[in-house]
Amino acid sequence: MERKEISKAVITRLPRYYRYLGELLEEGVERISSNDLSIRMKVTASQIRQDLNNFGGFGQQGYGYNVKYLYTEIAKILGIDRQHNLIIIGSGNLGQAIANYANFERRGFIVKGMFDVNPRLIGLVVRGIEIRGVEELEKFIVEHEVQIAALTIPKTKAPEIADRLVKAGIKAIWNFAHVDLVVPDDVVVENVHLSESLMRLSYRVSSMQDEETERRAQGQKQT
Amino acid sequence: MERKEISKAVITRLPRYYRYLGELLEEGVERISSNDLSIRMKVTASQIRQDLNNFGGFGQQGYGYNVKYLYTEIAKILGIDRQHNLIIIGSGNLGQAIANYANFERRGFIVKGMFDVNPRLIGLVVRGIEIRGVEELEKFIVEHEVQIAALTIPKTKAPEIADRLVKAGIKAIWNFAHVDLVVPDDVVVENVHLSESLMRLSYRVSSMQDEETERRAQGQKQT
Repeated sequence: MERKEISKAVITRLPRYYRYLGELLEEGVERISSNDLSIRMKVTASQIRQDLNNFGGFGQQGYGYNVKYLYTEIAKILGIDRQHNLIIIGSGNLGQAIANYANFERRGFIVKGMFDVNPRLIGLVVRGIEIRGVEELEKFIVEHEVQIAALTIPKTKAPEIADRLVKAGIKAIWNFAHVDLVVPDDVVVENVHLSESLMRLSYRVSSMQDEETERRAQGQKQT
Repeated sequence: MERKEISKAVITRLPRYYRYLGELLEEGVERISSNDLSIRMKVTASQIRQDLNNFGGFGQQGYGYNVKYLYTEIAKILGIDRQHNLIIIGSGNLGQAIANYANFERRGFIVKGMFDVNPRLIGLVVRGIEIRGVEELEKFIVEHEVQIAALTIPKTKAPEIADRLVKAGIKAIWNFAHVDLVVPDDVVVENVHLSESLMRLSYRVSSMQDEETERRAQGQKQT
């Protein structure tokens, strides 16, 4: 398999290629040169050629890339050409936002179930999916061959639930709880830490503010 | 200002340090060595020393780091020691999830307003914040000195709203829409692309599956 040799940096960029190629397909574009793709994606053409060369021979000199072929190949590499059964644990606003995002389903992520501890949520139906009590977790995972669990619960509860998920045979945790989960090597954890993202934004805004303040101070000194 | 010399990689790691230091503070820990912090955070002690040396002289040989001091300094660097006024555009599940996340407020991000185009949402109140129509955006931004806008709307609408935000003087966009926004250099965009995160997870799960399939095939050949 070629997939194992692809660097992590390239993998991180693949979903963005996939998105742009999908948009090109929708526009009816059949072929695109690395230069044209470069203008659209605002990365250098040489970066694009380097990244896409990882998969061997997609581009033909002078002909550009076959959009459909590249789109399909990247889907295979990302594993979104197959079905992944998913459950959501924590059915508050964030859990419901994920359940309602129809695009995930188009990419093979099928929400099989939703769970919560809150009796006011249990029994409600979101996009045809009934919210169940967490006591049903283990049985549900086995019966519905669930591979992925999205964890949208407070960080204090997350480690205990993660342990239960691992024991029940889950293969991957999409972790929105603001805590680092400890899991065996053969279980994947992908973190979405919103407050860390907001702090990075805060850093960048604050840096700009400080620079502006300094520039003004400099300006005043000189006058 | 020292902040300008800190590499992007270090900045990306700072929120995680901040989180662990906050937990140490809650536990009443006053000093910690790079070794102990290394065990907790599962990164090497030399990485920790390298990262934290960026801020000059936090650690004293043999005494370890002063947790409170480090926590406060990192907060200053990240700009979360000051108040940032924030609005949320798109008041569906994701927008409401952000509005309900009290921790953001503790870090200085004050949700001043929420907006939507949906008449069924306009007028509703989430955590004391009334949802307004987007036609009020510009006036609100100026009146409430809003710096940051969280964009939790579909990607088709995002570019137009981003243009309006920039014209109204917003400094940063926390973009959840699955599209690359085009903004001037002095406006910060921090993207949270959930479907790209899910694809990275999918890649890692699928790679493991393929490896397992291969291992099994190899095993069968050998027997």
